[in-house]
Amino acid sequence: MSELPAGLAVLPVAGLPEFSPGDDLAGAIAAAAPWLADGDVVVVTSKVVSKVEGRLVRVPPGADREAVRLRAVEDEAVRVVARRGSLAIVQTRQGWVVAAAGIDASNVGRDALVLLPEDGDASARRLRARLRDLLGVDVAVVVSDTFGRTWREGLTDVAVGSAGITALTDHRGAVDAFGNRLETTRTAVVDELASAADLVKGKLAGVPVAVVRGLAVERPEQEADHGTRPLVRLPDDDLFPYGARDLVAARQPGAELVPRAGDLAVVAEAFRIASAALPEFPVVLRYGGEEDGVVDVHLSDAVSTTTALNLGALLGAAIVQLHAEGWTTRWEPVGTPGGSSLMGRLWLGSPAA
Amino acid sequence: MSELPAGLAVLPVAGLPEFSPGDDLAGAIAAAAPWLADGDVVVVTSKVVSKVEGRLVRVPPGADREAVRLRAVEDEAVRVVARRGSLAIVQTRQGWVVAAAGIDASNVGRDALVLLPEDGDASARRLRARLRDLLGVDVAVVVSDTFGRTWREGLTDVAVGSAGITALTDHRGAVDAFGNRLETTRTAVVDELASAADLVKGKLAGVPVAVVRGLAVERPEQEADHGTRPLVRLPDDDLFPYGARDLVAARQPGAELVPRAGDLAVVAEAFRIASAALPEFPVVLRYGGEEDGVVDVHLSDAVSTTTALNLGALLGAAIVQLHAEGWTTRWEPVGTPGGSSLMGRLWLGSPAA
Repeated sequence: MSELPAGLAVLPVAGLPEFSPGDDLAGAIAAAAPWLADGDVVVVTSKVVSKVEGRLVRVPPGADREAVRLRAVEDEAVRVVARRGSLAIVQTRQGWVVAAAGIDASNVGRDALVLLPEDGDASARRLRARLRDLLGVDVAVVVSDTFGRTWREGLTDVAVGSAGITALTDHRGAVDAFGNRLETTRTAVVDELASAADLVKGKLAGVPVAVVRGLAVERPEQEADHGTRPLVRLPDDDLFPYGARDLVAARQPGAELVPRAGDLAVVAEAFRIASAALPEFPVVLRYGGEEDGVVDVHLSDAVSTTTALNLGALLGAAIVQLHAEGWTTRWEPVGTPGGSSLMGRLWLGSPAA
Repeated sequence: MSELPAGLAVLPVAGLPEFSPGDDLAGAIAAAAPWLADGDVVVVTSKVVSKVEGRLVRVPPGADREAVRLRAVEDEAVRVVARRGSLAIVQTRQGWVVAAAGIDASNVGRDALVLLPEDGDASARRLRARLRDLLGVDVAVVVSDTFGRTWREGLTDVAVGSAGITALTDHRGAVDAFGNRLETTRTAVVDELASAADLVKGKLAGVPVAVVRGLAVERPEQEADHGTRPLVRLPDDDLFPYGARDLVAARQPGAELVPRAGDLAVVAEAFRIASAALPEFPVVLRYGGEEDGVVDVHLSDAVSTTTALNLGALLGAAIVQLHAEGWTTRWEPVGTPGGSSLMGRLWLGSPAA
């Protein structure tokens, strides 16, 4: 058989004990994997990190474990992104958007629930430093957790902490063999490492640690830049900040708007969508644009209380739609002296910087 | 040094040529990796699959490549999930939700763009069958592509086709060592394999194929069940079906509603959210619930055209919010004879099955 190419090895660390608060996780890993070497990436399931760090919620005897879990989710969440029944997708204090705040009820005693580590990057840095002390090795550490994804079934492991490795490798500006500039390619290498490690860890096998060997680990100069902060998408770049729960609570109207071209077509489309979604508010609308950033909204019908309410309903839904598309709006009602059909003016644009 | 545990190997397949429509991809893989063995998982970047299958869009000489790309995105999309500027997150005919329909302008000549494979599962089945013919090996095949994720920066590789392997391993109903039943754990093992393979492939290195060796591959009995269809989340389970573009075009009102308890609190919360989002429509509301499924909406102010419009705006935004939370609504306006403050009744519930 021909020679195998050099690649990666993904190695399970077997024989680790059950962990409790205060236990020496790095010591146990060093004992179970004395073969750790420079350049290895040690991927540790967040659950054992949380257990040794005491990030547990106790379930009192006789208490409803599910009710305790739902309260803990509320405590850990800074924002509910979506909710359906008892399922809540929330953003945690650490910035992760995850079902049930990443709180886990499996692989832990019936009297406890496991929270995510308070600061997974700090946990990873401590493990990395301690493995260096114990074994004299320079390893990277990834703390992993199991997350769902929008639009895809099945869970995969991702990183919620890292040290000794660049979390996000940046290929932007690189040029391929055909002269194409790569514009948007940044790889979440620590997430891919977490997924690779999960292939040997499994959910029930009791193998919470795996080692990836053979990767040319890229690392930033500053130890403080080794963490997973770059993986957290900031609000301005988030196209899905609403979710079911705070769907309409989008952007606040700005006092200063910078007009953008094409607003009349955009308003017409928003009203078309609103009308299709709310057929119980039939109303015929006209719009007229005087200049960029201003759309006059007229009612064709005679103005009655009912038609005004109908117009308002479509206006409210259309504004929600516009906010979701990144526009900022300001509505200025116009009185209806003498039965004028002009109901108001919708200003829209981008917020002034 | 102590003995290493048995784990996985992730092996790059180097030395592959540039591919063009009609080329023999399986033959090239067999020649470059004669060491392939039973049980290996061959992970192939979708781009080379698309190239040999001729899934290319030609860019005519002198044409604007970006304009051709935007048109191709529209052609491949069955639904636009979100849009911001020239960035569109769409659902493809295959069911994948991905930026720009997965169309790629890198690692291909300037005169072409690469589409996703028409049917990645069929592509994987063909590669698997042909590798068996050529090398006499029983391997699994995963066709991978690079996708972004909501709420996380950085891209990872996922599966858009598979054969010879169960895409989604199901741990539901299993019991952990503490007696906890695992309720929701299904692992997208083919996505984790795609991510693991990407660690040795890289974006510029010209290594479009990698092999994962050592995984205990689980496979369904029927060859037809080996594909990635189970990874596509169906609409009923999708908490993020709206995206920016069709945010308000949620559920249609149903004629028959099944009342659900707690509707008054739900309506009050929806109006609270709407009021916070649309402060330019100040109005004081009262609600009264007669029975499950019916909420009376009153205006406290005297009813004028302007207050009716303001109420309507909040009503429209609140209904959008309610739809997003899974309620179905029906609005029945009430005339305002004699200046009554009762504006209408909002029925809400679940659609009758």
